[in-house]
Amino acid sequence: MAWDATQLKDWQIAELAEGNIPTTEQYQEMMGLQKDEIIPYGKTPKIDFLKVINRLKDKPDGKYIEVTAITPTPLGEGKSTTSIGLMEGLGKRGVNVGGALRQPSGGPTMNVKGTAAGGGNALLIPMTEFSLGLTGDINDIMNAHNLAMVALNARMQHEANYDDAELGRRNLRRLDINPKNVEMGWVLDFAAQGLRNIIMGLGGKQDGFMMHSKFGIAVGSELMAILAVAKDLADMRERFKHIVVAYDKAGKPVTAQDLEVDGAMTAWMRNTINPTLCSTVEGQPCFVHAGPFANIAIGQSSIIADRIGLKCFDYHVTESGFAADIGFEKFWNVKCRLSGLKPSVSVLVATVRALKMHGGGPAVVPGRPLPDEYTKENLELLEKGCANMIHLINVIKKSGIKPVICINAFYTDTKEEHDLVKRIAEQAGARAAVSQHWLKGGDGALELADAVIDACKEEVNFNYLYPLEMPLRQRVETIAKEVYGADGVDWAPLAEEKAKKFEADPSYADYSTMMVKTHLSLSHEPTWKGVPKGWRLPIRDVLVYGGAKFLCPMAGAISLMPGTGSDPAYRRIDVDVNTGRVSGLF
Amino acid sequence: MAWDATQLKDWQIAELAEGNIPTTEQYQEMMGLQKDEIIPYGKTPKIDFLKVINRLKDKPDGKYIEVTAITPTPLGEGKSTTSIGLMEGLGKRGVNVGGALRQPSGGPTMNVKGTAAGGGNALLIPMTEFSLGLTGDINDIMNAHNLAMVALNARMQHEANYDDAELGRRNLRRLDINPKNVEMGWVLDFAAQGLRNIIMGLGGKQDGFMMHSKFGIAVGSELMAILAVAKDLADMRERFKHIVVAYDKAGKPVTAQDLEVDGAMTAWMRNTINPTLCSTVEGQPCFVHAGPFANIAIGQSSIIADRIGLKCFDYHVTESGFAADIGFEKFWNVKCRLSGLKPSVSVLVATVRALKMHGGGPAVVPGRPLPDEYTKENLELLEKGCANMIHLINVIKKSGIKPVICINAFYTDTKEEHDLVKRIAEQAGARAAVSQHWLKGGDGALELADAVIDACKEEVNFNYLYPLEMPLRQRVETIAKEVYGADGVDWAPLAEEKAKKFEADPSYADYSTMMVKTHLSLSHEPTWKGVPKGWRLPIRDVLVYGGAKFLCPMAGAISLMPGTGSDPAYRRIDVDVNTGRVSGLF
Repeated sequence: MAWDATQLKDWQIAELAEGNIPTTEQYQEMMGLQKDEIIPYGKTPKIDFLKVINRLKDKPDGKYIEVTAITPTPLGEGKSTTSIGLMEGLGKRGVNVGGALRQPSGGPTMNVKGTAAGGGNALLIPMTEFSLGLTGDINDIMNAHNLAMVALNARMQHEANYDDAELGRRNLRRLDINPKNVEMGWVLDFAAQGLRNIIMGLGGKQDGFMMHSKFGIAVGSELMAILAVAKDLADMRERFKHIVVAYDKAGKPVTAQDLEVDGAMTAWMRNTINPTLCSTVEGQPCFVHAGPFANIAIGQSSIIADRIGLKCFDYHVTESGFAADIGFEKFWNVKCRLSGLKPSVSVLVATVRALKMHGGGPAVVPGRPLPDEYTKENLELLEKGCANMIHLINVIKKSGIKPVICINAFYTDTKEEHDLVKRIAEQAGARAAVSQHWLKGGDGALELADAVIDACKEEVNFNYLYPLEMPLRQRVETIAKEVYGADGVDWAPLAEEKAKKFEADPSYADYSTMMVKTHLSLSHEPTWKGVPKGWRLPIRDVLVYGGAKFLCPMAGAISLMPGTGSDPAYRRIDVDVNTGRVSGLF
Repeated sequence: MAWDATQLKDWQIAELAEGNIPTTEQYQEMMGLQKDEIIPYGKTPKIDFLKVINRLKDKPDGKYIEVTAITPTPLGEGKSTTSIGLMEGLGKRGVNVGGALRQPSGGPTMNVKGTAAGGGNALLIPMTEFSLGLTGDINDIMNAHNLAMVALNARMQHEANYDDAELGRRNLRRLDINPKNVEMGWVLDFAAQGLRNIIMGLGGKQDGFMMHSKFGIAVGSELMAILAVAKDLADMRERFKHIVVAYDKAGKPVTAQDLEVDGAMTAWMRNTINPTLCSTVEGQPCFVHAGPFANIAIGQSSIIADRIGLKCFDYHVTESGFAADIGFEKFWNVKCRLSGLKPSVSVLVATVRALKMHGGGPAVVPGRPLPDEYTKENLELLEKGCANMIHLINVIKKSGIKPVICINAFYTDTKEEHDLVKRIAEQAGARAAVSQHWLKGGDGALELADAVIDACKEEVNFNYLYPLEMPLRQRVETIAKEVYGADGVDWAPLAEEKAKKFEADPSYADYSTMMVKTHLSLSHEPTWKGVPKGWRLPIRDVLVYGGAKFLCPMAGAISLMPGTGSDPAYRRIDVDVNTGRVSGLF
């Protein structure tokens, strides 16, 4: 039985469904966990990662299903919703299924985009907890991150106020931090554009060191990036040492370890390493762990959550952020390489709406009504736009995976439109299925579930796009040509200089290549839809994250602090003071 | 059996004791709770406040024991340690006992002062959870508070960028906020002196509104003050409406409700209303709920925690921050008036060290060795210094309570010194007991426990120092003379002007009077020890908190953002990556 998603808002469906949310004991039984491996935490228990993984290390992994998407409209095409719907559909088929999703940021949740709990009958619960901080992982990151900044600025103050002899008496050596070369900013988890650029340390000599600084959103923190890729607590502890907070006046990095704050940062995140369990509205367990940005970081839930999921579930569903040219590429060449895990299949989510846009339909603008092209049958635009899907099918096939196309159905779509997309996908060598999980939950996702089960029976000869030995510039060239469809790469002088330095220095040999590019086009230019031809990818700069071990070639601007619009969600969020129930989340 | 507190650090004792920490089921049984009234949360369950209080509303309250102190040295004289030791001592006597303490801030915990978990064998566990964020209440406050600031600055940006017509199209009216009259700042929960004064909103017109701003420590937030005094979720929701974020150009308050963010703020704090349970190392349950500053706020754990504690325990111990002239005065005239609860007894903690200081001993400076006067017997200094204790015994007696003096024993004290203090206390009309809880736990606090049990048998004719009808200036005069021992009050012109306005405006009639004064002297001058004579209390200003409903007459400076010193605790905090155990907290 599904809820009437055309009449009810997501938070209302969540409230209705939460009466049946699994208890800690039910999760334990479903997942074959022992009592001391699951830590009760209100409605959303955490899993003791190390205990589970040690006990099950010899158990074969389940099927590993990644969900990605074609190049989307600015409205998004429903990857989270499809991931949840797929879990529900597989659940209806009676298989042992679960998944992993990212924790949403308070920025979009309080602003215009809303939470990332899926929607309709493909929804994650408890939605309120999921949307408002869950078990506190993002708060932990915020505290650990800001503690490093406290240590930095206080140290700069003390070094300015005391001579070397006095510093020595206080058991401190002069780090000689360059105030014009401070890498790190502060974080909080809202869209606070007013804190993008600040001057701090005004006042007297006890009021901190005066310098330019900035706030980013907490989910964009390097600590979040580290949480997503860390193997375990030891690995996280080690990475924290090497976070570059600033540079000294000789240009040498000043790390969290230099500030003697890396141990305390780890202390604030000792529990963050353990993933939290939520549930689909139909009762499938789903980990929520890490929520890194997809632009400078991996944009996927954690390696730890996938590792446990593959031990606990026969089918484990995980989602990659952004579109397949970024999300799948990072899943393929970074996440799977770091984890050593092998995917069984990728699901590429497509919508008739986005395909029509790629076929030349008018711009889709959030907050404005959709033009007629998108709400009425238009096979011509649709067929033309399928080029984007075909391109991404071919990208995925380069990894050895034969993808499943999920046509995420809208009620305005026609059967002819669905049939056309399906035929084209199959011609391109993919399986394809129409899915109505938003409207019908698992019952609407049976075709998709069957296609995925079928695909998982095939052997995958999984191989990376490039070997780790490949130098940075060649890696970028390979990604640009093979994934984005560019003719080549143009390096700005600064970027090329940095790239050469990284290539020559063996300490960067094991750094991941984490591309920075818009997800609204296969190219770097968000307005170029379909499959842009005859263009070169410009790389303006290469960012380096010493703790996460990422080199980020920048083919686009990144904002690490979104802005709050004039009609944000918080205007409509409230609490029933008699029950504590929250209304207005979406 | 006690741990060897002379050899082990607090975090080591905590680690040893945590093997026996009560389980959720044991707490439930000890406190007579029903299963759905206790919400498991790792090692520290939360209590569903409304459920418990509704079920037990007709049950008579237990004995209500407040712990306060004489005017302390800058090292503190062990109020938290004594509160915990008293719970343990009462536990040894076989009575049903529990208590409530404040949640510590990350500022002192990461800096030089350390956490507030007590010490030695009078320690609260789990110490790591207690010290590092517990169940996230302070994070909730931080998020809810900062969301209001996001709403403020974003609104200022949109009002600057759009004309009235465009604002109207966006369903917004112009609030016309005065950027030179913004009351509220941002918060984070570390000692970040570099964020005391900032310029924010640098950049372009989409980068926020440029203005002066500030960060305070999260525990100093008005939201924390509200959490401590709120009756329930409805009361908290109502108070959030009236938080004054800024003033408009006509001087009228702009509230959280005007910014349409009060509902969402409540959503972030919907669980914060429920207190968390910890335990003494000897197994007595202790609520940890709220941790408001004692300078501008009430400086005590929440009214909610005391209300539940009095229903669940026959003896409920609660601590007041600062010394009795501030902590007890606020407990007496504000907290008890707001809650309607009646205390059974007050325990006034005294140390030989602090009494000697009041008798004319040399200055006690944190981080420097104690002068000989404090480590060798000196009955003359001690006897002279007892004047401070006698003064505060007399203050407490004005409420109708006959206090119990707890002489918090140090190993350098002599029996003659203890006997002298005891005799003087008894002559002043108090009970007195020597307590060795730090060294011996509950076994060391039996004399104290017996004195408290004895005191609780007496009927208390509890009465407030002033009636609510008394005008503000007269209230301050009464407190200054009757509690601090001043000859009178001198009002600065600005303060007097404000006070007259508040007295004339009936909307301030139910506001609490929340004195701001140093705790290091009975006077406003921290260096005046003992019982200063022949002085007048200067009031420079009166702060107003519209949500908490506090008027704060300022007899001293307050810093809402402490600073991080050159040798902070975080340098020594670390995590065992194999077990997740944290070392170095103190």
